[in-house]
Amino acid sequence: IEEQENAYLVSEMESLHSADIAQILYQLNTAESKYIIDLLTAERAADVLSEIEEDLRNEFLKNFTGEELASFMDHMDSDDAADMLNELSVKEREEVLSSMDNRERANYILELLNYDDDCAGGLMAKELVKANVNWTVQRSIEEIRRQAKKVEKIHTLYVVDDYDVLLGRVSLKEMILAEDDTLIRDIYVPEIAMVHTYQDEEEVAELMQKYDLEVIPVINIQGKLLGRITIDDIVDVITEQAEIDQQMMSGISDNIEESDDIATIVKGRLPWLLVGVLGGLINAQFMGLFEDSLAVIPILAVFIPLIAATGGNVGIQSSTLVVQALANSNIQDSNWERFMKVTSVAFINGLLIGGLVFLFVFVFFGELKLSLVVSIALFTVVMIASLMGSITPLVLDKFDINPALASGPFITTTNDLIGIAVYFFVARMLLNI
Amino acid sequence: IEEQENAYLVSEMESLHSADIAQILYQLNTAESKYIIDLLTAERAADVLSEIEEDLRNEFLKNFTGEELASFMDHMDSDDAADMLNELSVKEREEVLSSMDNRERANYILELLNYDDDCAGGLMAKELVKANVNWTVQRSIEEIRRQAKKVEKIHTLYVVDDYDVLLGRVSLKEMILAEDDTLIRDIYVPEIAMVHTYQDEEEVAELMQKYDLEVIPVINIQGKLLGRITIDDIVDVITEQAEIDQQMMSGISDNIEESDDIATIVKGRLPWLLVGVLGGLINAQFMGLFEDSLAVIPILAVFIPLIAATGGNVGIQSSTLVVQALANSNIQDSNWERFMKVTSVAFINGLLIGGLVFLFVFVFFGELKLSLVVSIALFTVVMIASLMGSITPLVLDKFDINPALASGPFITTTNDLIGIAVYFFVARMLLNI
Repeated sequence: IEEQENAYLVSEMESLHSADIAQILYQLNTAESKYIIDLLTAERAADVLSEIEEDLRNEFLKNFTGEELASFMDHMDSDDAADMLNELSVKEREEVLSSMDNRERANYILELLNYDDDCAGGLMAKELVKANVNWTVQRSIEEIRRQAKKVEKIHTLYVVDDYDVLLGRVSLKEMILAEDDTLIRDIYVPEIAMVHTYQDEEEVAELMQKYDLEVIPVINIQGKLLGRITIDDIVDVITEQAEIDQQMMSGISDNIEESDDIATIVKGRLPWLLVGVLGGLINAQFMGLFEDSLAVIPILAVFIPLIAATGGNVGIQSSTLVVQALANSNIQDSNWERFMKVTSVAFINGLLIGGLVFLFVFVFFGELKLSLVVSIALFTVVMIASLMGSITPLVLDKFDINPALASGPFITTTNDLIGIAVYFFVARMLLNI
Repeated sequence: IEEQENAYLVSEMESLHSADIAQILYQLNTAESKYIIDLLTAERAADVLSEIEEDLRNEFLKNFTGEELASFMDHMDSDDAADMLNELSVKEREEVLSSMDNRERANYILELLNYDDDCAGGLMAKELVKANVNWTVQRSIEEIRRQAKKVEKIHTLYVVDDYDVLLGRVSLKEMILAEDDTLIRDIYVPEIAMVHTYQDEEEVAELMQKYDLEVIPVINIQGKLLGRITIDDIVDVITEQAEIDQQMMSGISDNIEESDDIATIVKGRLPWLLVGVLGGLINAQFMGLFEDSLAVIPILAVFIPLIAATGGNVGIQSSTLVVQALANSNIQDSNWERFMKVTSVAFINGLLIGGLVFLFVFVFFGELKLSLVVSIALFTVVMIASLMGSITPLVLDKFDINPALASGPFITTTNDLIGIAVYFFVARMLLNI
């Protein structure tokens, strides 16, 4: 397919969506990819590059000259272009920006480069259509016609005063429905959700989700309209946040992917593994104190995995429920009610599990006292692990640490330690060792 | 605040967004909530009810008569209304539908009730604006003006033929930019993403994410345009899916929330706890075979939690990476490359952890053979757990089971069993017991 048939390739690709072309490029090597991208129009190539995943795009970009990149960026939304430039060195950036034909866009991009990636300023695009509050509908529509060329999708017309301060919005629907000589002043909706450039991307996502918005304007501290954030960027934020939470729950400390190189993966995975190992070693030290008891009653050792695993499982369940309630800002009951509920659930589960295990151990091992020790220890571990699991995320949240951390190896390690301590404590009490 | 000052309440609420009013209602009891809702216009009340969370809405709805509900639904998007009716009994549904003034909407709702909640048909709303391919722009704008009253937001004008078969779309922006007498035939974009009514909600979410769509049309098997799905509903699907995955990773089997009642929570949490307990009991049975060895070398027991925890942690890390790669359809390397990478990472981590633990045990316990047993066992467990963790989600995915399950208690329990078996096997080999 590769070498000759350009005409065929071009016609094939014309019928494809840019996202699909990006997908195809994933399967090719960088030289082949460049070959394909060179066949496309600059506009199409810009589209395809916006769709490619960040890590891989970085690889691709190395193969293009500053001028080639500049020609792509002339056709790209300012937010995508700024993201792409952020991956280049300062020198390369200068080169690309100075080679761009579209000076307005180059200025937009330059402005966006000032913002952090994970705040509203870093998410916004500069392209939007706005109208002065004193214009008529007709003048505004002319203005839209003029401005619209540089804007990919128009959601809403933003209404500003003479100083560019955001006052409200008019939807395109209302513009179409209104008479030509109506004043914008008379039809605009003043109440409008907006965010400041410095607001965190998660706050923006929460706001847009809460009010079901498709686009939200971004203002500076003086209320001046600077840009807009669209829901497709927010969908990416939400998906990424869910991935980070999942990784945190699995004890992966950096945001790594299966496709990263070996060193990166090792670095992302090792820290929490070492925490777990440290917990296990402390556990071993602690149990060393009971070596004599274990020599006398070796059967005690066989229930250690049961106690540790149950404590870990209960703790993770509890913390996940609290983490999700925190994420949904959905904590309706009072603290006391919640404490009672957590305790009741733990009590019921502890009783059921303890009872079941009592029967099992009594039937298979035939020792009443041992059965009692194991089941009482299990019941206690379930109660303590539930409380720990429910409280830890709340404490982490208070200290502005991502509470999802509490559902990971941290809680498992802690509960292992507590569980085994409880087990040996109960054994010592009941078996007089 | 409650009892008298209606005028004050009404004016206060006029300045609030419906989502905020919904939030306030969460803090009131049902009688107070009904009082507030009665103060609102039917249109506003409909908006507020759409914003309220499902579980609580169910409670609220019980307080309203069928006629009251019908008046709300006259002002609600058909998809929200259908969701709400789905929570009522068949008899109540009939009552509400027959009391509705807006017959067209009642028919829409009736049609939507036929679809499952989690397919494209269940997500779509019937309200949309469409134009015949043979109309002019002017006629279409008139048509939009007529149709627009029933549609909250217009994204795109759908273009259909005489049989209502979807042909393509025209954006409002293009409509505004075009001359009045242009034919729709000449400006519409024929290539258009669409879904069938029976497609799964996750497929729809994936498609809309991939192509950055804000709205997608839904067609039936004949290609007839039936409705549309907007991105705000998809954002909810994505968030919910992330929650379900998290819960699966934590061993919670139903989609429960902290605010559910005690019985529901116990029911959602118990099954996987019992699986864990069963694993622990099997483990105990297995270790019972080694009771004699444990009696001779009781110190063996103290490293059991270390072995079990490390196996669990490594397994969960591996499976989470694979689960996320599956979710992003982002598996670029060949199976062989991936196998080599997983093995390399496991080898490095296993070596580091094994080495560290060897030193620790040798220093603190002073026994060379014991140190060797523990570190060799750990190394082996890390290797096996990595492979298990990487393969399990792929197998589950093949059988159409949510692979996130593999990051939960399932993998921990399995790895506990394997880890301890390896440990005792190595001990028996090296210590001749």
